[in-house]
Amino acid sequence: MSTRFDALRARLADINALTSSIAMMDWDQQTYMPPGGADARAEHVGRLSRMAHEALVSDEMRSALEGATGEASTEEEKALVRVVRRDFDLSTKIPTSLVAEKSRLAALAHEIWVKARAENDFKSFAPTLKRMFEIAGEEAEHLGYKQHIYDALLDQYEEGATAADARAMFEAVKPRQVALVKAISEAEPIDDSMLYGSWDEAKQSAYTQMLARTIGFDFERGRQDTAPHPFCTGWSVGDIRLTTRYKPYLGAAIFGTMHEAGHGMYEQGSPMKWDRTPLAGGVSLGVHESQSRLWENIVGRSRPFWEHFYPSLHQQFPELGSLSAEGFYKAVNKVEASFIRVEADELTYNLHILTRFELECDVLTGDLAVADLPEAWNSKYETYMGIRPKSDSEGVLQDVHWSGGSIGYFPTYSMGNLLSYQIWEALGKDVPNTDDLIRKGDFKPILGWLTDKIYSKGHLYTPKELILRATGKPMDPTAYLDGLERKYKEVYSL
Amino acid sequence: MSTRFDALRARLADINALTSSIAMMDWDQQTYMPPGGADARAEHVGRLSRMAHEALVSDEMRSALEGATGEASTEEEKALVRVVRRDFDLSTKIPTSLVAEKSRLAALAHEIWVKARAENDFKSFAPTLKRMFEIAGEEAEHLGYKQHIYDALLDQYEEGATAADARAMFEAVKPRQVALVKAISEAEPIDDSMLYGSWDEAKQSAYTQMLARTIGFDFERGRQDTAPHPFCTGWSVGDIRLTTRYKPYLGAAIFGTMHEAGHGMYEQGSPMKWDRTPLAGGVSLGVHESQSRLWENIVGRSRPFWEHFYPSLHQQFPELGSLSAEGFYKAVNKVEASFIRVEADELTYNLHILTRFELECDVLTGDLAVADLPEAWNSKYETYMGIRPKSDSEGVLQDVHWSGGSIGYFPTYSMGNLLSYQIWEALGKDVPNTDDLIRKGDFKPILGWLTDKIYSKGHLYTPKELILRATGKPMDPTAYLDGLERKYKEVYSL
Repeated sequence: MSTRFDALRARLADINALTSSIAMMDWDQQTYMPPGGADARAEHVGRLSRMAHEALVSDEMRSALEGATGEASTEEEKALVRVVRRDFDLSTKIPTSLVAEKSRLAALAHEIWVKARAENDFKSFAPTLKRMFEIAGEEAEHLGYKQHIYDALLDQYEEGATAADARAMFEAVKPRQVALVKAISEAEPIDDSMLYGSWDEAKQSAYTQMLARTIGFDFERGRQDTAPHPFCTGWSVGDIRLTTRYKPYLGAAIFGTMHEAGHGMYEQGSPMKWDRTPLAGGVSLGVHESQSRLWENIVGRSRPFWEHFYPSLHQQFPELGSLSAEGFYKAVNKVEASFIRVEADELTYNLHILTRFELECDVLTGDLAVADLPEAWNSKYETYMGIRPKSDSEGVLQDVHWSGGSIGYFPTYSMGNLLSYQIWEALGKDVPNTDDLIRKGDFKPILGWLTDKIYSKGHLYTPKELILRATGKPMDPTAYLDGLERKYKEVYSL
Repeated sequence: MSTRFDALRARLADINALTSSIAMMDWDQQTYMPPGGADARAEHVGRLSRMAHEALVSDEMRSALEGATGEASTEEEKALVRVVRRDFDLSTKIPTSLVAEKSRLAALAHEIWVKARAENDFKSFAPTLKRMFEIAGEEAEHLGYKQHIYDALLDQYEEGATAADARAMFEAVKPRQVALVKAISEAEPIDDSMLYGSWDEAKQSAYTQMLARTIGFDFERGRQDTAPHPFCTGWSVGDIRLTTRYKPYLGAAIFGTMHEAGHGMYEQGSPMKWDRTPLAGGVSLGVHESQSRLWENIVGRSRPFWEHFYPSLHQQFPELGSLSAEGFYKAVNKVEASFIRVEADELTYNLHILTRFELECDVLTGDLAVADLPEAWNSKYETYMGIRPKSDSEGVLQDVHWSGGSIGYFPTYSMGNLLSYQIWEALGKDVPNTDDLIRKGDFKPILGWLTDKIYSKGHLYTPKELILRATGKPMDPTAYLDGLERKYKEVYSL
């Protein structure tokens, strides 16, 4: 390795130490921190974030990066330079003053949003939200884009993805998904009331850890704790942290764990030689979400999965009574139009996202005023799901994202859903009889294929190139739509 | 606050963010980190430590410190400048090359020591230990001292303390303590076998947290977890972390918790306005230890303490059977000469420390060769406690300190023991009837006095000045020796 690459790697390693400490503090804040620690935590994270940012945008980094760029020869070196260049550009193109204003506004906006949601008072949040959308627009202009202002924002979260990509995805998905939801709403409803109860938390913890371990999450290189909002984080290929939560709905811990374990196995699958470098880890939010959704929904909500696991689940939770494996399978696949995105089932979830994407685009292009967002939101819910929120708290005010300035983020959730089925289809061509494997509780061939094609690639390719290599085609909604229709027509006897 | 002070405070706040992240990573490593996280943790902590060190010894810090020194006018400002000046001097006087060599040697020495202890092979450790003592000697020369080479080393851990102080302390303590231990060894032994068993860990956790809460540790600003070697750490007056452990000996968790809670209440007692500055926290290792020992031994191993708590303890642990409160009190005050310092009782503990102090001095002055340490060690154990280690593993190889280069550290343990009784004596003059208060479970007046006189002072004074102000005299062994003799002559009916 040449001297200039060494200089770049040394700088990156310092930045990695700082960002790792921030991730660790964030994990602690959401799992174990006592209330009294909040003020110091905010101060420490703020200072460490500033140091990490300064180290990234420094003149030293610029010249180390330029030096290394000319010397990059291997595929790995070129990928490293590309990834760091992208981070550097994203961090330097937006003026410091705008970054600072956004950061200040986000802190303020969060408090205003919490209060507005609690009091069902969109008007009190509207001016702040308007400014946040303006800032997003200014960011987009600084970042630059070819066709649509949304491109610049989406690209921050999903490299190379454009508004046209997102629109094509949603336009393909919309008619078939809306029709399927409508058909289900007219079918015999599924009763999942037996999944609500007072489930022992220690048992849920032990059972969900067993599930995560069995599908392949390595507890020698990770752990699972409890947090109000489940997440997956980490600071080394050797140290990935999952969290879960326990609710009256038994599925919350089970599928929350499967979801986060999917993220976690992706992170654990990076080559150890890339540990603590920008080459390790998931390549984008969309591809990351494809893995959490694949393990949560395609594997975890499948019939063979519960043919294998239900006996042990029933043994741990005899309160399930006379409910059979088949009954459990149906119950965890209940579809119901609902107002709250984070509580939505696999099928209606995309319609929640679609709504948000369309509204974001319209506000950014000036076709919709922020003041008119509540009405537009409610109309779309009526059109896509046949239900109309009775208040803004269960409508336009429900998500935290916009108050934090995460505008352009939502489509990555839907991309993850699509990609999960597309990747599963490709996997099925190389790994025959996945149903049989799952029914036997043998997840090694599945994890092996995913690791080989996706997890072990880290950031070596762009997200689009990775998907092309792994599945043989660009992102395509066919497998997703076909898969959902096949599954839910059977579940609901349509 | 003037501009130059602001500059100093900003730099200190950045250093505090870095050292806090290191403390948090260390806490996590000892409580929750999975095995796979160790390599990345070492790398991250190493880099963050280097950044913190660089920020402290920087030219910018030097000039900010000089600027602020001229402007310091209030007592707080003067104290802040004094404390930072001391840290700056301690960190800049020792050449970087020596710091680096020590750090490298310590990492290596730890592995060699672990192996040597396991294999009872002092010879394989001797060359490394010899170099570590030489490095300590070189450090002392760089730091400078007036009388004894040991002064420079001890001062790092206990500001202002000298070898003469330590020697005076031990010379005063030695005859009376050796005689007391000897008398007890000839008395009727206390049976504490009923304290060994399989105690439910969840119950121990709940009970010890109740104890910590009752004596005054604030769980809104702290928590207690499990670690192999109990410790107390923190990164804010609002976030102090205790750890404890569960052993077949029921006293391990109870008195371990009392000990760490003593450290923790000291840290929690700093004024919030000093949070995240060098003025917050315990003033020295010795004074810190005085508080852990005061709560553990003087309060926690007292008869009125167990008159109050034993009924609830017995209720939680009915396995204690027919053991009475009085029997429990006697059992937890059993004295027995033993080889291992960390398992020693309150009384013999000091004799372990005395041995180490005398040996450290002799090696540093060249009066004792490292190769002759095992024999010298064993002789001293025979002289002071009447027992002779049968192997170096239970003798000179037992402690981690020397392999890490912590030479000059041990006397602070004994100073803590002495000071705990001296402070308790002073407290007793202002807070009458402490026995009655403890018997009622009312610890507020005791914690209040300690907070007022010691905890709330943070680093405002030097350790020596703090003790003088709090107790009206310099460190003095009288209260300690009188207290121990009074207690143990009664316990053992001497």
